[in-house]
Amino acid sequence: MSSEAFYKPQRVRTVLVANRGEIAVRIIRAAQELGMRAAVTVSDADRDSLAARMADVAVPIGSAHAAKSYLNPVAILEAAQQCGADAIHPGYGFLSENAAFAGKVETAGLIFVGPSSSIIAMMGDKARARATAKRAGVPTVPGSEGVLDSLDQARDVAGRIGYPVMIKAAAGGGGRGIRVAHDPAQLDVELPLAQREAQAAFGNAGVYLERFIGRARHIEVQVLGDGKNVVHLFERECSLQRRRQKIFEEAPSPSLTSELRASLCESATRLAREVGYRSAGTLEYLFDETRGEFYFIEMNTRIQVEHPVTEAITGIDLVRESLRIADGEPLRFEQDDIVMRGAAIECRINAEDPDRDFRPSPGRIDELVWPAGPGVRIDSMLYQGYTIPPFYDSLLAKLIVFDESRPAALARLDRALREMKIGGVKTTALLHQAMLADTDIRAGRYHTNHLEAWMAQRNAKLGESEEAA
Amino acid sequence: MSSEAFYKPQRVRTVLVANRGEIAVRIIRAAQELGMRAAVTVSDADRDSLAARMADVAVPIGSAHAAKSYLNPVAILEAAQQCGADAIHPGYGFLSENAAFAGKVETAGLIFVGPSSSIIAMMGDKARARATAKRAGVPTVPGSEGVLDSLDQARDVAGRIGYPVMIKAAAGGGGRGIRVAHDPAQLDVELPLAQREAQAAFGNAGVYLERFIGRARHIEVQVLGDGKNVVHLFERECSLQRRRQKIFEEAPSPSLTSELRASLCESATRLAREVGYRSAGTLEYLFDETRGEFYFIEMNTRIQVEHPVTEAITGIDLVRESLRIADGEPLRFEQDDIVMRGAAIECRINAEDPDRDFRPSPGRIDELVWPAGPGVRIDSMLYQGYTIPPFYDSLLAKLIVFDESRPAALARLDRALREMKIGGVKTTALLHQAMLADTDIRAGRYHTNHLEAWMAQRNAKLGESEEAA
Repeated sequence: MSSEAFYKPQRVRTVLVANRGEIAVRIIRAAQELGMRAAVTVSDADRDSLAARMADVAVPIGSAHAAKSYLNPVAILEAAQQCGADAIHPGYGFLSENAAFAGKVETAGLIFVGPSSSIIAMMGDKARARATAKRAGVPTVPGSEGVLDSLDQARDVAGRIGYPVMIKAAAGGGGRGIRVAHDPAQLDVELPLAQREAQAAFGNAGVYLERFIGRARHIEVQVLGDGKNVVHLFERECSLQRRRQKIFEEAPSPSLTSELRASLCESATRLAREVGYRSAGTLEYLFDETRGEFYFIEMNTRIQVEHPVTEAITGIDLVRESLRIADGEPLRFEQDDIVMRGAAIECRINAEDPDRDFRPSPGRIDELVWPAGPGVRIDSMLYQGYTIPPFYDSLLAKLIVFDESRPAALARLDRALREMKIGGVKTTALLHQAMLADTDIRAGRYHTNHLEAWMAQRNAKLGESEEAA
Repeated sequence: MSSEAFYKPQRVRTVLVANRGEIAVRIIRAAQELGMRAAVTVSDADRDSLAARMADVAVPIGSAHAAKSYLNPVAILEAAQQCGADAIHPGYGFLSENAAFAGKVETAGLIFVGPSSSIIAMMGDKARARATAKRAGVPTVPGSEGVLDSLDQARDVAGRIGYPVMIKAAAGGGGRGIRVAHDPAQLDVELPLAQREAQAAFGNAGVYLERFIGRARHIEVQVLGDGKNVVHLFERECSLQRRRQKIFEEAPSPSLTSELRASLCESATRLAREVGYRSAGTLEYLFDETRGEFYFIEMNTRIQVEHPVTEAITGIDLVRESLRIADGEPLRFEQDDIVMRGAAIECRINAEDPDRDFRPSPGRIDELVWPAGPGVRIDSMLYQGYTIPPFYDSLLAKLIVFDESRPAALARLDRALREMKIGGVKTTALLHQAMLADTDIRAGRYHTNHLEAWMAQRNAKLGESEEAA
């Protein structure tokens, strides 16, 4: 047993975390465990954040308005220079999948913790990503080959793949820029609208068509690459969504047979290898349970919110591994080294009021009790007395439970949710408790529309009992 | 995937936790995860404890003075009746290894979560435990065969095994009732003293002799049995002690080869099988690193403070398994099912002032920030605003880290200790941070005297620099 440090950084002595909230805290932890100096960018609204307190240095980058700070490449590059950073970790959201930003980081001679800007660009263009998948022999949702040139072409494609169809912005993502057409007449109306919307939202009017799969599951595969080798770390099931935002994620998926799991995960590795992928990445799929078929939909070239469930079942620290790869290390695992064990669930605890249509609920945290004990992990940026700024997304904390099996993890989640107390703001914790009482969720029988249908039904019932009262 | 509950209790619908502090919280969590109703005994000083808040019901059992409450079998049995408990979990300390209490629980027709009272009685008598070990072919420290009859016999035995020798109370434990003699003259003086002390402290004057191993390691093996089958869950290294109280424990031990580990763990299984052991238990050994030999010293017939490091490396919830066994389930594992992975470390955070000879530091917790993120577990009874009563032991929290290897776990422990803030009382957290800087501790090169020698040296250095200033 050696008394040497766990790790000696070679190239990344200082990493600048160009993000905020829980993911900034997460990355700071990983960097410090590796013996790297962790710097973090802070907007004027974040000077007293937990990330700012934990980082070795916090660098102000501008006003609370994200466009002036977390979305401002110039300010971030200046911050990197100011704190002597060798590398920039973009986290998720903000500039994490902005190829131009990654390119600027590369040009400045700094290390971007993620894939190269050219891979980000390729995967960021849904049509090119789809073409790459086809080259790698990975199934995609039946649809148009690339961006549509005309309404006529759209009608032909829709007729071939069958209605309903989805119209998706080539430059979209995170569920934005999607419309559904159930027949040719609706397609005529929606297509131009979708194009105008795409132009306005993403500066790119390109749209494409896909078969609409009504009762699909959203399953994604985690990969890790070093530019030469790629391994997968199994899948996550993220079908429980509200307005296309995931709020409950688990690993492994309760809906896959081991044959389908092997086939799905191998397809992801194949696609990531095809592009020589480096860093942590996620390939998102739709799984059509009725047909037993999965279709690649897009790749997220960054760490994801729900990465901890994968860490729980594999024992591999994804953020730390990405930092090691950015530091020049080769991948430390062969595929056979990665073994899946037990079951993990993540609940996103948002500062939103479930009883008022999920209206954001910023404010001061005046009581904070985290659940603890075996198999419970909290990733959060809260501390008692912290005031949540109203400028950013509403994610407060991720509660992750791990146990020997899915039923055991559900029981653990139930007790952990009961232990948790976040006072001063409304949160989605009670919603999660209610979800745990749903027979279908307990049984793992759900698809991407399940949660909204369940909530609508629940609201109707609540309404009835209020009327009766 | 079924929507059934994770577990359906058969006999134990309500379990009464006859304890307090972090272990009461720990047991309540496990019981609730199993769908059992969790009751907890509370003294007048503990009515506002975290355990009382988390339990389904809190039953007052008497005054703050432990003899009137947590050490009072009558009050506890009355509490069990009052809350309709089917079982009593004694935790550690207090009545957990009191065979008479376990017998009373059995006589009352209740389930004692632990082994039978007769096994507790047998293992509680060090001389009988030693004889049992011999029968099972488990090596013990060279010493007297059972309790000494006379000073002459003591001199004979000491001459045969060689000085220095330890004089130990047959009814002692936890490091109490131990004296060392370096030569025959000292033995003449110390033996009668030890006998009188044993009579006063334990109501039993019986003492025995053992070879004193100066630079020994304290290594213990976790076992789990159902009365028929027994498995081991590998070992814990607990050599870092202050006044024979463990304060830093890890699993696996950094000092064992895999051959020695196999031989040690098999010996523990053999001994536990010999007595038909039921529930979780721990066999404590001294490991003489120079000779490469281990000696059984005693068995603790209860859950131990440091059990979480074993849970971390095996993925098995020991408290939950004990409750299932108490509920009538057979052991769910064969030995080959139990696989060790990674490395775990536990730091005991006590309300003590390391700068004032570890004087207890009770008081009100006015700030509380737990470390979090991957591989970090907290077992504690603290909440912000809680006032620590001055009547009980000083353990506030256990910080447990888990990682892929020992060096990684040390790095993680370092960052977790930096994140932790417990305001309002003095704690041993800073001592743990200082220990992490010690080359020998980092390298896993330490024995049971290491910590006190290190602290003495450190205090001397601090004294010198104060004088120089």
